Amino acid sequence: MSVAAINYDLSMGRWEPDARGRLEQAALALYAERGFEQTTVAEIAKRAGLTERTFFRYFADKREVLFWGAGSLQEFLVGTLASAPDSAAPIDAVAAALEAAGALLQERREFSLKRQAVIAANTGLQERELIKLASLASAMAEALRRRGVRDPAASLTAEAGIAVFRIAFDRWINESSQRDLPQFIRESLDDLKAVTAGR
Amino acid sequence: MSVAAINYDLSMGRWEPDARGRLEQAALALYAERGFEQTTVAEIAKRAGLTERTFFRYFADKREVLFWGAGSLQEFLVGTLASAPDSAAPIDAVAAALEAAGALLQERREFSLKRQAVIAANTGLQERELIKLASLASAMAEALRRRGVRDPAASLTAEAGIAVFRIAFDRWINESSQRDLPQFIRESLDDLKAVTAGR
Repeated sequence: MSVAAINYDLSMGRWEPDARGRLEQAALALYAERGFEQTTVAEIAKRAGLTERTFFRYFADKREVLFWGAGSLQEFLVGTLASAPDSAAPIDAVAAALEAAGALLQERREFSLKRQAVIAANTGLQERELIKLASLASAMAEALRRRGVRDPAASLTAEAGIAVFRIAFDRWINESSQRDLPQFIRESLDDLKAVTAGR
Repeated sequence: MSVAAINYDLSMGRWEPDARGRLEQAALALYAERGFEQTTVAEIAKRAGLTERTFFRYFADKREVLFWGAGSLQEFLVGTLASAPDSAAPIDAVAAALEAAGALLQERREFSLKRQAVIAANTGLQERELIKLASLASAMAEALRRRGVRDPAASLTAEAGIAVFRIAFDRWINESSQRDLPQFIRESLDDLKAVTAGR
């Protein structure tokens, strides 16, 4: 961030334009440079040209910078699943929800790349990511049950969807390709259909 | 355990017949009675009629009582996958390996029931279980790649296999049924095939 931008912001007093985005960027840069464990909230706030107090207005702790989006992602998936047409097969409803979420994440590719690198370097964060994905699967299974899908089909469809999403996400992050995340999701679902059919 | 058995064991000095099994049983009983967090290694050893020193000869800590089998389960799955006939489709090789592991676990149903109840009551243990399953999926994907299966098919097949295993395992634990774990695994795989086919 430029000095001018910092001065601008300080002159605004308590109102900081896009404070969350600036804190997020500062945190990711520091996690990449020094490692997640070695970075303090004070350093993140300083790098963003903001106070620690402002940091804690947006995030409970430095880990939440990486995970605050999980709640809204889950709400989005559950809401999209609920609004799928009654006639949609469960796997297609799940695929449509994941593709729609993927289109939103596509806008945040740079952030996602940096975030993934930080998580890959830290076992505790990898564990947190696994828990997040397990929660997403549970929430989607519950949304399917509310659509009248029985178990074990509901749980299996949700778990299969999350497996597809994880693998599509990894490919999107790691492969240099023109394809966007929703395309990777569609491809990975087709791949899953092929492997479960024994091809 | 009977007083006679304890006396018998103490009289044997350093040689304790089935010390691991006794420590395991004592630990599970205490985790169920008092909760995992509230149980100490000293209490487990005492309940088993053994010393703390003996406990630490078998387990690094009280959590390992619940997870020591993960390493051999992984080796078993990887070894079984490696020895599947070349002609087997990846999903069938994975299914056969999981069914074979399921047959071994079937022998430990009582233990598995108690273990699952302890894990369900503790968030930290649930996280550890998720990590264990993610490791199993990674190891199976790697075993498939060594069979010449490419990615993303290798990862997807392994993840799908673990999803099937999890759901089969839950049903085996929670449903009062005459079916054994390998049967639940076969059924859940068929269910997965049906849901991915959009049925």
